[in-house]
Amino acid sequence: MINQKYLGMLDNRNVIRNLSEYATKRSKEIGEENVFDFSLGNPSVPAPESFKEVSIRLLETMAPLKLHGYSPTLGIPEVREKVAASLNRRFGMNYTADHIFPTSGAAGALAHALRAVSKSGDEILVFAPYFPEYNPYIEATGATIKVVPADFDSFQINFEKAEEFLTENVAAVLINTPNNPSGILYSEETLVKLGDLLTRKSREFGHNVFLISDEPYREIAFDGKKAPYVAKYYPHTLTCYSFSKSLSVPGERIGYVAVNPACEHAEHLVPMFGQISRGIGHNCPSSLIMLAMAETCDDTADLSVYETNMNLLYDTFKELGFTVVRPGGTFYIMPKALEDSSIKFCEKAKNYDLIFVPADAFGAPGYFRVAYCTDTEKVKRSLPRIREFVEKEYARKQ
Amino acid sequence: MINQKYLGMLDNRNVIRNLSEYATKRSKEIGEENVFDFSLGNPSVPAPESFKEVSIRLLETMAPLKLHGYSPTLGIPEVREKVAASLNRRFGMNYTADHIFPTSGAAGALAHALRAVSKSGDEILVFAPYFPEYNPYIEATGATIKVVPADFDSFQINFEKAEEFLTENVAAVLINTPNNPSGILYSEETLVKLGDLLTRKSREFGHNVFLISDEPYREIAFDGKKAPYVAKYYPHTLTCYSFSKSLSVPGERIGYVAVNPACEHAEHLVPMFGQISRGIGHNCPSSLIMLAMAETCDDTADLSVYETNMNLLYDTFKELGFTVVRPGGTFYIMPKALEDSSIKFCEKAKNYDLIFVPADAFGAPGYFRVAYCTDTEKVKRSLPRIREFVEKEYARKQ
Repeated sequence: MINQKYLGMLDNRNVIRNLSEYATKRSKEIGEENVFDFSLGNPSVPAPESFKEVSIRLLETMAPLKLHGYSPTLGIPEVREKVAASLNRRFGMNYTADHIFPTSGAAGALAHALRAVSKSGDEILVFAPYFPEYNPYIEATGATIKVVPADFDSFQINFEKAEEFLTENVAAVLINTPNNPSGILYSEETLVKLGDLLTRKSREFGHNVFLISDEPYREIAFDGKKAPYVAKYYPHTLTCYSFSKSLSVPGERIGYVAVNPACEHAEHLVPMFGQISRGIGHNCPSSLIMLAMAETCDDTADLSVYETNMNLLYDTFKELGFTVVRPGGTFYIMPKALEDSSIKFCEKAKNYDLIFVPADAFGAPGYFRVAYCTDTEKVKRSLPRIREFVEKEYARKQ
Repeated sequence: MINQKYLGMLDNRNVIRNLSEYATKRSKEIGEENVFDFSLGNPSVPAPESFKEVSIRLLETMAPLKLHGYSPTLGIPEVREKVAASLNRRFGMNYTADHIFPTSGAAGALAHALRAVSKSGDEILVFAPYFPEYNPYIEATGATIKVVPADFDSFQINFEKAEEFLTENVAAVLINTPNNPSGILYSEETLVKLGDLLTRKSREFGHNVFLISDEPYREIAFDGKKAPYVAKYYPHTLTCYSFSKSLSVPGERIGYVAVNPACEHAEHLVPMFGQISRGIGHNCPSSLIMLAMAETCDDTADLSVYETNMNLLYDTFKELGFTVVRPGGTFYIMPKALEDSSIKFCEKAKNYDLIFVPADAFGAPGYFRVAYCTDTEKVKRSLPRIREFVEKEYARKQ
C-alpha cells in the first residue's frame, strides 16, 4: 500500500508556494509588471561570469571520464581542500579538506548534519523566527523540533526562554543567521552569549550540545559589515552552507557541511556523513558543479541590489508607521502587520497586487515577510502601492 | 551526543571499496598497468560528445538566472516531458511529464520510490543475487529487506522461493535487470511470470504489491538484443533509472523515477516524491545537468567495449572449467569460485594481481564478481594471468 503519511502531506499545501502560484496566475491576467510578488526567496541577480567561464573551461579541457566520473563518497579531494582554504583565509579558521563535506545545497547539508548529531527521540532547538522547512527536515530524522519563542524587540535570541527550553533532551541547536524571515544578523554579543550558554549546559548535562549553523545568507550583509562566523564562538559547530545565494546558482544544488576542527568527534563526523548518504539517496552534488564551485567559491554575484531594495522598503515601512527591525542582511524584511491577524493583512494586500507572506508559520505570528529579491525598479514602483494599501485599509491607525 | 548507529557503520568497511583501495595501493607499487582491477563498477568509456556540446551551449546561450535558478519541486517541466517522450517512443509506453520525477541518480530514485510505496515495518523483497547497497537503502526507510535465494542455474528468478517469501507483509518487490552482479538480463518469460505472481498475490492480499525496477544497466544489452522494458509486464511499476552508465556521467548524479500511468495512485506518486524530498535533503539534480540530459537522453556513450570484454572473459572462464552463466548485459560476469570459499579464492587471486570481488554480500556465496569496465587491451592482458592463477592454484581440479 502507498505510504499514507506522504499521501496526507499533499493536502498541507505550502503557504508560500500557494501565494507564489497566485502571483503567477495574477501575472497572466494583468501582466507581470503589475504584480508585486514578494513571496519567494529566489535570487534575482545572475551568477558571476566566472562561474560560466570555469564551467565551460572544465567541459572543454578536462577528460570526460574524470570530469563526469564518480566522485569519492566524501567528495572530490581538491574541492574539499579549496573550500577549507577559502574558509581559513576569510574567517581565520583551521579547517583541512577532511572537515569539509560537499552537499546538494544547504538542505542536503542539514540532512546530514542533523542525522549525525541526533537520534530518534532527541530534541532539536530552533529560535523563532525560523525557516519553516526545518519542520520536515527535522521530523524526517525521527527527532523533535522545539521552537524557542522570539525576542520580538530585536529578533536576536530570546535567552530567557532559551535557558528554559535547553533541557537534557536537546541534542543540537539549529540557528540561521543572517535570518530567514527576519533579515536579522545575530550580533557578536548574541553569539558569545549563545556559546556561553551551550558550554555551560553541556557541562551540566555531561555531554556536548552541538550547534548547527545554517548560513546560506552569510555573504549578504549590509552597511559594509560582515556576518560574524558562527563556528568561531563555539567549538562543537557544524556549519551548513549553500552557494545558492552567494553565487546565485540555487538550481545547481551545491553547498557543504564544515565541521569545526575543535568539534567533538571532528575526525568521525565527515566519514559518518558518507554513511548517512547511503540511506537518503546519495544526494551528493554534480561533479561538474562541484569543480566549478571550487574555483569560484571566493566570488559572489553582484549582491548590492538586495541592500538597495532593503533601504527603500525599510524607509517606507517606517514612514508608514510599521513596527519593523532593520535587517542586517539576506533579502527579507519582516514588519509587524497593521492588524492582529497577519493572514487577514496579507489577504487584503493581495487586493493591491502586493504579495506578502504571513510569518505565522515562521514562528512570528502577527508579522509578515517581504522577500525583496527583485529589480530595484520594481521595488520603487511598489512603494506608492504599499502607501495606497495602508492609507486605504488602515487610515484610522496612522 | 553523536549518533552511535552511523558511528558504528564506520567499522563495517565496504568489501568492494577495500579491494579497490588495495588495487590503488598495489598500482602505486608495481604500476597501474600490472594490476588487473576488476573490483569497481565504474564506467570506462567517455560521455558522448553531445553531452559536452549541449552543456556548453546551455552555458553560453541561456540566461544564468533561468539556467541556474531553482527548479520546481517536481523537476523542470520540459525535462520531464522529454524523458516521457523518449520512453514512449522507445518502449511504447504512454507516460506524460506528470509521471516523471528527475532524481540524483538511481540511488536518489530508489530513495523516493521505496518511501512512497512502503512504510516502517513493511517488507521489501529482493531476488539474489542483488546489489548489496539495497540493504542501507531499504533499512533507512524503516522497512525490512527480505532476500529470495538465487536460482543458481540461470540467475533468473527463483519462483518457487519467491512464492514462499511473498507474504502479505511485502509492500514492494525490488528487481534489477540487467543485473548487478550476475550480468543476467531477466527474460520476457521471467517478467511475464513475475507479473502474474504479483497480480495473483495482490488479489489474494486485497492490496497491490508494487514493483520497483532498478535499471541503470538497461542500455547495456548484448547480442543485438534489447532489455525488455519491465513496466510493460506489470501495471504497478516504478521504474528507477540512472544515466550514469548510458551517458557515462556517474558523477553528475542524474536519473529519474517513471511511474507507470496504469499504476495505482499514479497521479499521487510524483507529488508524494516531492514531499519525500523535503525530509531527505532535497536531493534533486543540478538544473544544468537536468537540461543537458533532456537533450541527450536518447544518446549513449559507445557501450560496445563492454560486450567485447564480456566475450573475452566468458570464453576464458568457460575454457578454464568455471561454472558461469553468460551475461546478457551490464559490465559484470559472476563465475563460481574454484573452491567452496569465494573469499579465499579472491584472496589467492590477489597474489596474481587479479582483483575479483567475492559475491557473498550479493547473495551468491561461492561466486565472485568480475567488473570488466576497463580497456579491452587490459582485459586481453589479464587472460594469461587468469590462466596462470587457475593452473597454479587449482591444477588438480582441472
